[in-house]
Amino acid sequence: MIIISLFMLFPAGIAFFYHETTSGISFLKAAGGVICLSIFVIFLTAAGRKEQMGAREGFLIVTFGWIFSSLAGALPFVISKQIPRFTDAFFETMSGFTTTGASILTDIEGLSHGMLFWRSLTHWLGGMGIVVLTVALLPILGVGGLNLLRAEAPGPSVDKMTPKIKETAKILWSIYLLFTVVETGLLMFGGMNLFDASTHTFGTLATGGFSTRAQSVGAFHSPFIHIVITVFMVLAGMNFNLYYKLVSGKVKDFFKDTEMRVYLSIFGITTLLIAVNLINSYGTFGRSLQYAGFQTASILTTTGFATADFSLWPAFSRNILFFLMFVGGSAGSTGGGMKVIRLTALFKIGINEMKRMIHPKGIFLLRLNGEVVKKDIIYPIAGFILFYMALLLGITAVVSTGGYPILTSFTTALATLGNIGPGFGRVGPAENYSFFPDYIKWVLSAAMMLGRLELYTVLVILTPSFWKK
Amino acid sequence: MIIISLFMLFPAGIAFFYHETTSGISFLKAAGGVICLSIFVIFLTAAGRKEQMGAREGFLIVTFGWIFSSLAGALPFVISKQIPRFTDAFFETMSGFTTTGASILTDIEGLSHGMLFWRSLTHWLGGMGIVVLTVALLPILGVGGLNLLRAEAPGPSVDKMTPKIKETAKILWSIYLLFTVVETGLLMFGGMNLFDASTHTFGTLATGGFSTRAQSVGAFHSPFIHIVITVFMVLAGMNFNLYYKLVSGKVKDFFKDTEMRVYLSIFGITTLLIAVNLINSYGTFGRSLQYAGFQTASILTTTGFATADFSLWPAFSRNILFFLMFVGGSAGSTGGGMKVIRLTALFKIGINEMKRMIHPKGIFLLRLNGEVVKKDIIYPIAGFILFYMALLLGITAVVSTGGYPILTSFTTALATLGNIGPGFGRVGPAENYSFFPDYIKWVLSAAMMLGRLELYTVLVILTPSFWKK
Repeated sequence: MIIISLFMLFPAGIAFFYHETTSGISFLKAAGGVICLSIFVIFLTAAGRKEQMGAREGFLIVTFGWIFSSLAGALPFVISKQIPRFTDAFFETMSGFTTTGASILTDIEGLSHGMLFWRSLTHWLGGMGIVVLTVALLPILGVGGLNLLRAEAPGPSVDKMTPKIKETAKILWSIYLLFTVVETGLLMFGGMNLFDASTHTFGTLATGGFSTRAQSVGAFHSPFIHIVITVFMVLAGMNFNLYYKLVSGKVKDFFKDTEMRVYLSIFGITTLLIAVNLINSYGTFGRSLQYAGFQTASILTTTGFATADFSLWPAFSRNILFFLMFVGGSAGSTGGGMKVIRLTALFKIGINEMKRMIHPKGIFLLRLNGEVVKKDIIYPIAGFILFYMALLLGITAVVSTGGYPILTSFTTALATLGNIGPGFGRVGPAENYSFFPDYIKWVLSAAMMLGRLELYTVLVILTPSFWKK
Repeated sequence: MIIISLFMLFPAGIAFFYHETTSGISFLKAAGGVICLSIFVIFLTAAGRKEQMGAREGFLIVTFGWIFSSLAGALPFVISKQIPRFTDAFFETMSGFTTTGASILTDIEGLSHGMLFWRSLTHWLGGMGIVVLTVALLPILGVGGLNLLRAEAPGPSVDKMTPKIKETAKILWSIYLLFTVVETGLLMFGGMNLFDASTHTFGTLATGGFSTRAQSVGAFHSPFIHIVITVFMVLAGMNFNLYYKLVSGKVKDFFKDTEMRVYLSIFGITTLLIAVNLINSYGTFGRSLQYAGFQTASILTTTGFATADFSLWPAFSRNILFFLMFVGGSAGSTGGGMKVIRLTALFKIGINEMKRMIHPKGIFLLRLNGEVVKKDIIYPIAGFILFYMALLLGITAVVSTGGYPILTSFTTALATLGNIGPGFGRVGPAENYSFFPDYIKWVLSAAMMLGRLELYTVLVILTPSFWKK
């Protein structure tokens, strides 16, 4: 909480730079208040107590970390009255920290520079948090079937865990920071000013999707900018562990990564399909490819930026994007969705079963990254898919109590649980989430958090066994 | 093929009874032609050859059995010109044999009695076929993770298999026949004539959904009829193995069946939710419950009968039905969809994984029907879910090439792959499938077959390993 409050000094500075005094003071008030309260709570609870931290505490810290961050992050919006209602401010901030990019703003350009910067910065912080969490922390806690590398990681003892996490986290942060600097530089080279370049970089690398313009990236007409953002969206949707490996010189491991190959294949094939389908709309194949690639990357990586209103595209292209909304980015990336590795593992086990049908006595191994992995990894993945589908349909039912048609209700659930941002119908890329009644906004905030924390981290807290000694 | 041709004598008799000479003669022509061709092929191929039948031959026989049955079954429609186009006739027949109930007919009452009877009879035959297949045959071939009782069944050797299958099949057929007689009797008691009673019984027990009226069961206003059909739809969506157990005196096994409990709970809860939501539309809670129960049973069991146009219901009720379209009936029933047991098993493995997150060294067993089952059963189920979702989205993409909106394209895929019949949008309960271009009708015919044969049975034929020696 203290770190997040300190980060509020950046937008405060920007607000004062643009002579937005009210905004600037709101950040200082919010930061000051949260820091004081945090120090108070620390003294109140931690004085003289030293307890071992285990898996349960981990789940609680992660879940409530996201909730409290969103509560604190919402304060500047409310204090400055730029987003006067708390429900809206909380939704917007949760959408930021979970890198969803769903917005309740009806007039984005009406916000002050300070607030727009803070909004994008929540993406950047959330993205950084999730990478460290999924690559360094969750595998140790054994969450969600992404712990393919479990053997490499130390056991669930905190003493052993700490140094490893610290070291991994440091390298991941450095990579994230490097990407940030490079993309910002390239966007400025393409004609953006520092403010637009940095905020859009935050939205890209976190696969968030908040823009400073109502028209999103479409407000900038340079093809160079579109291409740079496309490339960095694709990079941000890849497992950051791969970059870690590249940095450590394990180049072979990088290239034989199953998830990366499938992910890039999906991106390539769907981009081509859409580009061919859109060729009449955009005149040349080059332009068609540019717009297809951008929107494909945006939905596949669950970013949510737009250079075109895809809800106006032909049915086939729309349906391909609908398809991509179920997939999502790679594990250990800032992307959301079900994740490519889960779908790949399920596909491989399905093929295995078919081989077993033909040769009932044969032994068929599950291979990922060129190596045999234990079939046990399927159990958490299978449970995940069921919970994901059940939540998707449950959230759809809740949203539908507001009286919206199925397409709107269903893609609202899909776009929040999958941390995508835009859906179809009334939550399409040219629309926003402002019209939902409050109770739906709270449910969608919960959906964004559930999706972001890979379901299990949050759901486990709701089981009775969690609270038994 | 010969048996199916002989069954054509029933609608032929009905046609002559109603003085529909052209229809009657068409059945005789079709039956005669198919029988002659079949005998010719038998002499041509089987003469002097006696080969061992294994699992591969089983998959081929089952898949091509459904294809050839639909080819033969379409003949009377084409010969009599009651459905002049072959694509349409094939679609309608495949829809019949797969117990889907999706129709290309725009004027149902315009068909002759003989043709309407044949149409419903394909349901009844397909339903009977699928029960024997999933309860007696597929478990032995090891398909689709429904082989929970594999240990009870003999190994994949044909010599041992034959007597067991024959015995099981006989009992299943007797149960199916008993249900047919009882429901027909009850419907006649409720005021239907023999023709309407028997055709609607065929549609109910097969969870098919073809009616003799454009308004479906809604054309009959007796609440008694609605309730009888509701009850028998629910019965038809249950595992016929359970009735087999009841008959064999294993009453305890019946009541501790996990899938049945979950299935009935889903039916009860969703019916109540919809009934409460609809109370204003239908005046009294009793009437609301009657309409909610019918439509819930119809969609959950994937029958597709209608007493109300649910596409005009409030958003919440529509979304609950949309949710049910993903579930489907029980394994070993005539119902389609993903099947309750698969979702239940995945849910249980997910809960297991959560417990394991809290107690990483604990051992958590998977229990079904009060007994511990091997966790291996999750592998084929996990693969199934992935293939199901992938096919759903793939078929959606193909349908969308016709330019239909997402809701229509997606629920068309859902309604055919899940063997439901009606979807939403342009394939809603008051609509039909006639407007699709031919190539989409062929793809949807394939979808119905894939769904009906639990995906694996058909998909395995498409793998290269299937064709290797």
